[in-house]
Amino acid sequence: MDHAFLIDNIVRAHWFIALDLLGTIAFALSGITIARSEGYSLIGAFVLAALPAIGGGLVMDLIAGRAPVGIIDQPTYMISIIVVVVTAKLVMAFIDLARGRFLFFFDLAYLYVRAQQTMTTRTLLVLFDSIGLASFTVTGVLTAIQFNCRPLVVWGPAFAVLNAAFGTVLRDVFRADAGNPVMKGSFYAEIAAMWGLVLVLGLTWLPPEVDVWIITATLVGTSVMRMVLYKKGIRAPMF
Amino acid sequence: MDHAFLIDNIVRAHWFIALDLLGTIAFALSGITIARSEGYSLIGAFVLAALPAIGGGLVMDLIAGRAPVGIIDQPTYMISIIVVVVTAKLVMAFIDLARGRFLFFFDLAYLYVRAQQTMTTRTLLVLFDSIGLASFTVTGVLTAIQFNCRPLVVWGPAFAVLNAAFGTVLRDVFRADAGNPVMKGSFYAEIAAMWGLVLVLGLTWLPPEVDVWIITATLVGTSVMRMVLYKKGIRAPMF
Amino acid sequence: MDHAFLIDNIVRAHWFIALDLLGTIAFALSGITIARSEGYSLIGAFVLAALPAIGGGLVMDLIAGRAPVGIIDQPTYMISIIVVVVTAKLVMAFIDLARGRFLFFFDLAYLYVRAQQTMTTRTLLVLFDSIGLASFTVTGVLTAIQFNCRPLVVWGPAFAVLNAAFGTVLRDVFRADAGNPVMKGSFYAEIAAMWGLVLVLGLTWLPPEVDVWIITATLVGTSVMRMVLYKKGIRAPMF
Repeated sequence: MDHAFLIDNIVRAHWFIALDLLGTIAFALSGITIARSEGYSLIGAFVLAALPAIGGGLVMDLIAGRAPVGIIDQPTYMISIIVVVVTAKLVMAFIDLARGRFLFFFDLAYLYVRAQQTMTTRTLLVLFDSIGLASFTVTGVLTAIQFNCRPLVVWGPAFAVLNAAFGTVLRDVFRADAGNPVMKGSFYAEIAAMWGLVLVLGLTWLPPEVDVWIITATLVGTSVMRMVLYKKGIRAPMF
Repeated sequence: MDHAFLIDNIVRAHWFIALDLLGTIAFALSGITIARSEGYSLIGAFVLAALPAIGGGLVMDLIAGRAPVGIIDQPTYMISIIVVVVTAKLVMAFIDLARGRFLFFFDLAYLYVRAQQTMTTRTLLVLFDSIGLASFTVTGVLTAIQFNCRPLVVWGPAFAVLNAAFGTVLRDVFRADAGNPVMKGSFYAEIAAMWGLVLVLGLTWLPPEVDVWIITATLVGTSVMRMVLYKKGIRAPMF
Repeated sequence: MDHAFLIDNIVRAHWFIALDLLGTIAFALSGITIARSEGYSLIGAFVLAALPAIGGGLVMDLIAGRAPVGIIDQPTYMISIIVVVVTAKLVMAFIDLARGRFLFFFDLAYLYVRAQQTMTTRTLLVLFDSIGLASFTVTGVLTAIQFNCRPLVVWGPAFAVLNAAFGTVLRDVFRADAGNPVMKGSFYAEIAAMWGLVLVLGLTWLPPEVDVWIITATLVGTSVMRMVLYKKGIRAPMF
């Protein structure tokens, strides 16, 4: 009871929702980057953006029996994805237009910006993506607790993986890409599984008073671990 | 209340159910045409026929929380698909048999019929497919209204796309086809999205008395737009 | 009522649960064999093991409206899959280690064992897989009866196919493998459909007293038919 109340307070807090939306946007961006380079239409880009952002959570909600499912209950996620796709399309249309009209000016600006920002942009994307992995891991575990899916040491990590990484798997399944990185060695879902287990054990064994600290530790641990493993190029254990 | 009652009357009317079944059959035919040319088994053909016809609606029903889902509640759809697959198999078996036994007669008849009907057959298939796109767009939007999925300007068009086009996407995902046309420029899901928005706005802003006219306009607009865009070979906006 | 009671007794009997778990393990093994040969990570192997073992049943449960879904209600299945994947990983890690350290001894033993056991191992795998096909066919049909999905002659066989074969289809869809054998001529889902129909007709037409015999006949018939068709290399009817 105390646990449930405290957990509820945390996931409804503004800072937590902000992290979750940041993650949603980062996941959606991962989809539209692919949509641009592989020649998808505007609606295809929306599908590729929505799958990593909300596809895994939808499957998790259906397994857990949440009714209505999260995307219906909280339309902010769906709206965020639409805004991301439309904004990205407008920005790229503007760049294409600028490239045609103000070629020289644009080229100069482009070279300058590119030299200075490429590394920063990529780092920012990985940062946001890591925050998404972290917040989705936490909401996955909390869903297993909320719907009383026993044993928690199985369903906590399983829901963390479903919520945080399964949508990215689906994105690549829809692209008919046999080289699905999340299933073939990219160190990603494993982090959600490990920290999901840590969070389950912490919330089960420790007193409710420290719930907020366990959740914070999971958020920091997950995102830092993702960034370090990514930067060092460490691969997940193969089968 | 008035809206709900009038809408209910429309979707239960014989003419609407007839359009919906015609669409189901057209979508099933799109699957079995592929099954024939790509060497699928009888049960594989059934999967490829069922996915575009009922796969998108099933995903929509699960998101909306409809219980039981439409295909269980109204077995006519499942039975139609079985009838289409079995009939197509029997017709093709008869043609194969006839080709072996009455070769000369068949060839003569074949050449005559082919010259005259190829264009008509293709036009008929596109007509039925367009009717399916139209009726599935309407039932998608009405599902969003029935299950009170807010905001309607998001979920109306989203459910129209899920119901009318997502099954076709699934069909190509199951074939592991990376060239998924609905996501790569075939002007199809976009039409469902646009007319889904028109229908939502019409049902929201206009008095209940004109509901039947708004639905009729959506049915006609969707199918005519699909046929015109198809005939003219116009592609959807790319990302 | 009598039917329901007797059927309930059968599916809760130890011998039936043992068959069902044996099938789950065989299906999971089919996934990890592929994971090893195609370079999947540990978590990728888990996905490929879980899809054929529980993926089809999950889709069936969602269509039938079972709440909570079977994998949440009976965590034994999920735990079995985790045990299978971890055990297989440990065994293979040990073999890799042994190969490095005791090369000569291992090679001798390997050659001896291989010559004698290859056929036996493969036969055992096909036997277990056939038992899985049989028990999943039975639980599929019983789910259609339990959730009153009418007409039973449609939904009984359909749920048998979903429960017993759809997960294997999903496994190959996730691998983006266009040569999906269950849809392209491997005689597998057809057996579930046929015996599913036999079981529905038997349970519908015959008195409740013989329910246990009809179910036993379906289990034996399904697994024997699968093994005979596999050994003789007989293909399913093409479309």
